[in-house]
Amino acid sequence: MKSIGTGKGSNKGQKRDLAVIVSEVPATAAGMFTTNQICAAPVKVCVNHIANGKAQAVVINSGNANACTGPTGLKDAKEMTALMAEELLLQPEDVLVGSTGRIGLQLPMPNIRKGIGQIVKELDDSPTAAHHAAEAIMTSDTQPKEIAVEFKLGQQTVCLGGIAKGAGMIQPGMSPTGTRPASMPLHATMLSYLTTDAKIPTATLKRCLREAVAGSFNCITVDGDMSTNDTVLILANGLSGNGKLSNKDLKTFQSALNHVCLELAKMIVRDGEGISRMVTVRIKGAKTHKDADAAARSIGNSALVKTSWNGGDPNWGRIIDALGYSPAKVIEEKVDIGYSTPDKSKLVYSLKKGRPTPTDFKTLCKVVEPKEFDLHINLNLGKGEAILYAADLTEQYVDYNKGDISDPTSLGG
Amino acid sequence: MKSIGTGKGSNKGQKRDLAVIVSEVPATAAGMFTTNQICAAPVKVCVNHIANGKAQAVVINSGNANACTGPTGLKDAKEMTALMAEELLLQPEDVLVGSTGRIGLQLPMPNIRKGIGQIVKELDDSPTAAHHAAEAIMTSDTQPKEIAVEFKLGQQTVCLGGIAKGAGMIQPGMSPTGTRPASMPLHATMLSYLTTDAKIPTATLKRCLREAVAGSFNCITVDGDMSTNDTVLILANGLSGNGKLSNKDLKTFQSALNHVCLELAKMIVRDGEGISRMVTVRIKGAKTHKDADAAARSIGNSALVKTSWNGGDPNWGRIIDALGYSPAKVIEEKVDIGYSTPDKSKLVYSLKKGRPTPTDFKTLCKVVEPKEFDLHINLNLGKGEAILYAADLTEQYVDYNKGDISDPTSLGG
Repeated sequence: MKSIGTGKGSNKGQKRDLAVIVSEVPATAAGMFTTNQICAAPVKVCVNHIANGKAQAVVINSGNANACTGPTGLKDAKEMTALMAEELLLQPEDVLVGSTGRIGLQLPMPNIRKGIGQIVKELDDSPTAAHHAAEAIMTSDTQPKEIAVEFKLGQQTVCLGGIAKGAGMIQPGMSPTGTRPASMPLHATMLSYLTTDAKIPTATLKRCLREAVAGSFNCITVDGDMSTNDTVLILANGLSGNGKLSNKDLKTFQSALNHVCLELAKMIVRDGEGISRMVTVRIKGAKTHKDADAAARSIGNSALVKTSWNGGDPNWGRIIDALGYSPAKVIEEKVDIGYSTPDKSKLVYSLKKGRPTPTDFKTLCKVVEPKEFDLHINLNLGKGEAILYAADLTEQYVDYNKGDISDPTSLGG
Repeated sequence: MKSIGTGKGSNKGQKRDLAVIVSEVPATAAGMFTTNQICAAPVKVCVNHIANGKAQAVVINSGNANACTGPTGLKDAKEMTALMAEELLLQPEDVLVGSTGRIGLQLPMPNIRKGIGQIVKELDDSPTAAHHAAEAIMTSDTQPKEIAVEFKLGQQTVCLGGIAKGAGMIQPGMSPTGTRPASMPLHATMLSYLTTDAKIPTATLKRCLREAVAGSFNCITVDGDMSTNDTVLILANGLSGNGKLSNKDLKTFQSALNHVCLELAKMIVRDGEGISRMVTVRIKGAKTHKDADAAARSIGNSALVKTSWNGGDPNWGRIIDALGYSPAKVIEEKVDIGYSTPDKSKLVYSLKKGRPTPTDFKTLCKVVEPKEFDLHINLNLGKGEAILYAADLTEQYVDYNKGDISDPTSLGG
């Protein structure tokens, strides 16, 4: 795979803001898309182009979400794919597209046209090129997010790499079609692009991506807002030359994909707008998985719980309050609440069966002091489990997002 | 009615922190209580004592919520009613009880016992005494909240007065039994105590309170967190001497009660922790009332929308994003978004049928600049309507609620 990030895509001056990823040969492809009913033009075009299970290139701009941009926005997103296709001698349907940035502004198409003409000349398969692509999709991110792993499928060494961006408007809830199944919990722009030289049939790739996203990008929250543009794409071009996948191979691939997605998802939370702490909320003993997920999201999105995390306050009162108003079944006299380091060592409980433990305040403060800690909750009602990677709420988040109306270009998402 | 607020209830030094309200004669009574599954001891006792539709006194302490305090907490809440009853020569069942403050600490019963013994000697029917009661139930409130109105039922002049407290953990969702109907949206400690000298049968009083709360306290949000202690009580002692209520009288009473509850509810939002703006979110054209309510809450609880309000930014992108991920049915091409002054004059639209209007940014900024403005949304899909009184999210809110772990007594709710 070749990629590159460059400037000139949007109107953000010298920052890289246009990225492309191109496979040397046609690839199988799968995607997961925001289930927000207000869905950006590039998402609509992407869902359409990926329907045949194939793709050979992706083009992404940052700084402008091309969301709520009407028919012009849709025409522009299509033109982005057509321009890329023309440069690469492909069909527009072979090209996928993504955007991230402010909602409601029309794309600066003269810049984008010029940018696309230029960027294909810079395509490269070096790590530096991938790094530049990771930089080019950043908005309020303070650092690029990238990862690559190698593993064996049969005798062949296979590569799987990915880039992502996040920062604000982060609580993705993605599905393969961008429509929300009735059973799906309600939950930013996050974008992630994954490539592999493994040979994987489309149906398998779709199933694997769905599982990986369910346990990673769909399990994070920075601020509880779900974006109009959330997109995860994977392209598998088969150049590693692996043969038909055995069950063991499938497990290996799934496991690698789960790992890559989870690491990228956690990078998004750690780099969330203004955040000072990432908290892994681990719910056990819920009546159902759905209950466990609802309980975790009620905690991870509570303004009072998030501010207490910012203060390094092991406040269990706000946590049990958030559990109590969640849609999950909760019985006060059964709830355990504990804290641990991320490696799950030094687990200390502040509440057992709804009653405070004798653990002293200073000991509890110590465990929630680091940049990352785990919150363990057992509802003791059933076998439902869920994990949510959540962020605290800081004065910096508010300051960043209130923006400066005297400089409208400072106003995000 | 007599009332008074005094110190000595909790352990907060010189601040008034114990309030009592006493009717000269037995009164009919109705209540609405938090539907949080984690429900404080005083709420449990109150629900139980009010079941007979009668009451003659209420005792409330601030600084300690008596929530998650186990069997001791329940015993203490009952003892508060028993002590009051003893002082007033009533039965414990004639006394209702409320608490607000930090969750998970046992009540300072020596102080409370001493306080109750003292406070009944200070009972008074003057406005000053009511003002002291309003002060005594405050926690993070910066000012007491009180209102009284006079109106005629038949030939008789009737009085209706109320006090309330709020500040943080504010998104009440109350029901008469404290249990959540399946249809009820999920939504702080807010307390409100209403008294009237009207003569109203219990069943009528309950129905009137339910309607009044549905359009007031259950339609506010400061931070989206629903408390373990939310309580609204009304006592009607009949001393005005009005006769059987005519339909016109009933309408007059309902209208007065709606007004008193709404004014108190808005005082709670205006005095929400750290808030700088109150925004009235008006949804029209939703498929159903439930959809309208869900749409309003999705907007009123979105961190990104609330921070934009703090910045005075008429950002419609974040608003339509929050609409899109709400459970309400939304079609981008139909959405209208506008802003007005609270008197609904100077209505300007930023979005019509999903497309930005030519209204310039400065004009829009002007309308969202005052401390209070209205947000008008028409989904153009049906006849569902809802109103939510919401607050912005500020750095002051975060700073207050992150607290200071070196001073655990600073840590709120």
